[in-house]
Amino acid sequence: MSILYDERIDGALPVVDRAALLRALAAEIPDLEILSEPDELVPYECDALSVYRTTPMLVALPKRLEQVEALLKLCYARRVPVIARGAGTGLSAGVLPLPNAVLLVMERFTQILEIDPAARRARVQPGVRNVSISKACAPFGLYFAPDPSSQIACSIGGNVAENAGGVHCLKYGLTVHNILKLEILTVEGERLTIGSEALDTPGFDLLALFTGSEGMLGIITEITVKLLPKPKVAQVLLAAFDSVEKAGRAVADIIAAGIIPSGLEMMDNPAIRAAEDFIHAGYPIDAAAILLCELDGVEVDVEEDCERARNLLQNAGASEVRQAADEAERALFWAGRKNAFPAAGRLSPDYYCMDGTIPRRALPEVLRGIGRLSDEYKLRVTNVFHAGDGNMHPLILFDANKDDELERAETLGGKILELCVKVGGTITGEHGVGREKINHMCMQFNAKELTAFHAVKAAFDPEGLLNPGKNIPTLHRCAEFGGMHVHMGKMPFPELERF
Amino acid sequence: MSILYDERIDGALPVVDRAALLRALAAEIPDLEILSEPDELVPYECDALSVYRTTPMLVALPKRLEQVEALLKLCYARRVPVIARGAGTGLSAGVLPLPNAVLLVMERFTQILEIDPAARRARVQPGVRNVSISKACAPFGLYFAPDPSSQIACSIGGNVAENAGGVHCLKYGLTVHNILKLEILTVEGERLTIGSEALDTPGFDLLALFTGSEGMLGIITEITVKLLPKPKVAQVLLAAFDSVEKAGRAVADIIAAGIIPSGLEMMDNPAIRAAEDFIHAGYPIDAAAILLCELDGVEVDVEEDCERARNLLQNAGASEVRQAADEAERALFWAGRKNAFPAAGRLSPDYYCMDGTIPRRALPEVLRGIGRLSDEYKLRVTNVFHAGDGNMHPLILFDANKDDELERAETLGGKILELCVKVGGTITGEHGVGREKINHMCMQFNAKELTAFHAVKAAFDPEGLLNPGKNIPTLHRCAEFGGMHVHMGKMPFPELERF
Repeated sequence: MSILYDERIDGALPVVDRAALLRALAAEIPDLEILSEPDELVPYECDALSVYRTTPMLVALPKRLEQVEALLKLCYARRVPVIARGAGTGLSAGVLPLPNAVLLVMERFTQILEIDPAARRARVQPGVRNVSISKACAPFGLYFAPDPSSQIACSIGGNVAENAGGVHCLKYGLTVHNILKLEILTVEGERLTIGSEALDTPGFDLLALFTGSEGMLGIITEITVKLLPKPKVAQVLLAAFDSVEKAGRAVADIIAAGIIPSGLEMMDNPAIRAAEDFIHAGYPIDAAAILLCELDGVEVDVEEDCERARNLLQNAGASEVRQAADEAERALFWAGRKNAFPAAGRLSPDYYCMDGTIPRRALPEVLRGIGRLSDEYKLRVTNVFHAGDGNMHPLILFDANKDDELERAETLGGKILELCVKVGGTITGEHGVGREKINHMCMQFNAKELTAFHAVKAAFDPEGLLNPGKNIPTLHRCAEFGGMHVHMGKMPFPELERF
Repeated sequence: MSILYDERIDGALPVVDRAALLRALAAEIPDLEILSEPDELVPYECDALSVYRTTPMLVALPKRLEQVEALLKLCYARRVPVIARGAGTGLSAGVLPLPNAVLLVMERFTQILEIDPAARRARVQPGVRNVSISKACAPFGLYFAPDPSSQIACSIGGNVAENAGGVHCLKYGLTVHNILKLEILTVEGERLTIGSEALDTPGFDLLALFTGSEGMLGIITEITVKLLPKPKVAQVLLAAFDSVEKAGRAVADIIAAGIIPSGLEMMDNPAIRAAEDFIHAGYPIDAAAILLCELDGVEVDVEEDCERARNLLQNAGASEVRQAADEAERALFWAGRKNAFPAAGRLSPDYYCMDGTIPRRALPEVLRGIGRLSDEYKLRVTNVFHAGDGNMHPLILFDANKDDELERAETLGGKILELCVKVGGTITGEHGVGREKINHMCMQFNAKELTAFHAVKAAFDPEGLLNPGKNIPTLHRCAEFGGMHVHMGKMPFPELERF
């Protein structure tokens, strides 16, 4: 595994006197719970991308806003870096600790402060679990649309920090499209309101800027989310194809026909087999690819769209199109897809979940490329896609205890992201950049673009104390990484000419 | 009219040697058309908010990107401020010239560079008129959703700069929700790509930041817009009410029922009378308020929603609900609303169109407040609302040739915006801040929030050369204006206690 923070290329960090800091915290914020013993720190070493691990200097577990405020002021005065963390379910090592940074865990802020059904919004604290919002709003027939796979465990603060998506974001958007207002604390511990309850807010749009900023601009302390009325009915079609190309064409046809499915997911043969073996969803195990196409809304509308989608799937060459007979079968169809990751886990001791986005038209080309890379690096890859919006999640199967498999998996993952950029896509879909993809930002953006990001970072955190070394690489890091300045696939990229 | 730029409170501007600049432009960019004679400059003195006027130092009319690039580099080297302008249809004096700034007119960039119907997007130059995009995409059954009233004349570059809305933004969003990618030139003349063709882009979300930034962060040179499939059918209901409260309740009920109308517009009695007198749309002239509720989509869905909306309107106390019998009547219903502004123009030599957003529940309270202010300042006000999203457009009627009516209109307008903030709303809905509402930003945002805006501005334009004196007031200006730091209606605001 690569060095997780390299002061030479990531920028020098302040020297922190840990003992003095602990004394100051005890004296100035005596009721703030602090973890500092080695065994207490272990659970906070990583997020869900557990191959990246560092022991935090110490962990703060505030329960009240005033404690967070005081902590930030104290850390700012002493120039101590701070890394905010939610439930720790992230997949890009966005909350990877540093040995000289405070890990500020917001998981105890679990209150739903207000639900306004008429205005269709809720005000919640950052530690509220994603699914809890929808549960609390269910009596009003409302729900919060973004539904990352981790929704039972992940927190809304983390969703905002990573701009999380989910199976339904094709129709309902990412987190940024489903929030209205944020209360934040700046690096200096100052309170700031961002956005408003109106559709448009005067001044610069900082709401979108903060969403997905991975804890680099401020600490989120409250979120006002939009709520949507629950769709009356949902129906799902399962289509089997004897080639990935045909499945890809069907996706393009459905979108081009003006149908907006609430979910449009693709799985390739290895993913189908793994899921079927695990869940027994009734998937056709010989298909090269299957599509799950979900339509939701009012009944008549869904029926009509189902009929149209079925025709489009058949015209694109589906060997079979099945409509879930009832709610139980619909749940079963989805259970296979939603358990694609744990199913892969049964095939291999370890797996590495990638997250990239490609233009829909490039889907067959990218799958062929991944196949070639899989052969080259001698590691199996299964593919699961949010096909409708081109967001792909190749799973690289490996065994961390074998030779150099972890290293090969990391390299292979990087090559897959390069391929995404080469075809005009991006290196993330919904998991964020974090520490994981910091090098790959260098091929996504050129020096001018990165400089613009750094200028924005400096506007809120001039000394770089918030989550150092994540999300936006230094130019020094990019130079070190090889100066691969491909921009949206437009500049020459000789390493990839073979694709 | 107030002083349009006050160096004492807006910040010192560089001294510009106009003659030397003209010589340099002629020498270095000989093929760039420059207007510098007094009579040539007159048409560029103002945008559609024509009470604010200044003669520009000179007007540049580039035709090619390289000219814009060269102009920006030349201006940056000489520290000459630059104000970008599209079609000049804005309503907040966002492109008000300065006597020592170049007015950079982008109206000659009128090419639609690419339409990709399968990916549902188009790449256009900034001078393309809003309506031209939809026209060009019509053969593919697609259109560009944001439809400001000025859509025949306004340019897409201006739409992005002001984050323009329109009657349909309740359902389809503002400009920011309908674009994917921008090519911009920085103040130094450097090219920068912002956003991508994917739903999520790694790094900070600068796309939303630039949208609505009113030419303060960079010059937009190309826009990739999202296209939507044209709804198959649209139907409109006209409901009459004997009180504004009842109409307001109906709006809340429709939204709460989970219906998302493509348009939900309210007009008060003076607006109804003016429109009816002008257009003969068949509006009930004795109604205290009417609602126009448009539903679009597939036929069965629209029919069902119409039925539900009709019941909700009646239950809320509508004295009459009419459904447009055919496409001609639907067009007529809308013609009245769309001509509300020119209709008001027939009642009065001048009118001042305000733009604020309020929580839907505050609608009756705000209308009563506007009534009282109208009496106090002895100026008639007619009210037209995008009721669904709480975006109101009070029209203040006045005669600029009479005594102090212009001044009174300006003061009254300010009071109405204060009222919007007081009830938890905002000082803009879709027209932007520009020069017009620069003082009112001081009551919308506190010093910390404004400081955050200035930090972002400085990240892209540290010397403040792009559109100086617009959008974000200096703290000095706010102190001068009275230090009214109400934030989202939360802080005390004694001047407004009578409401």
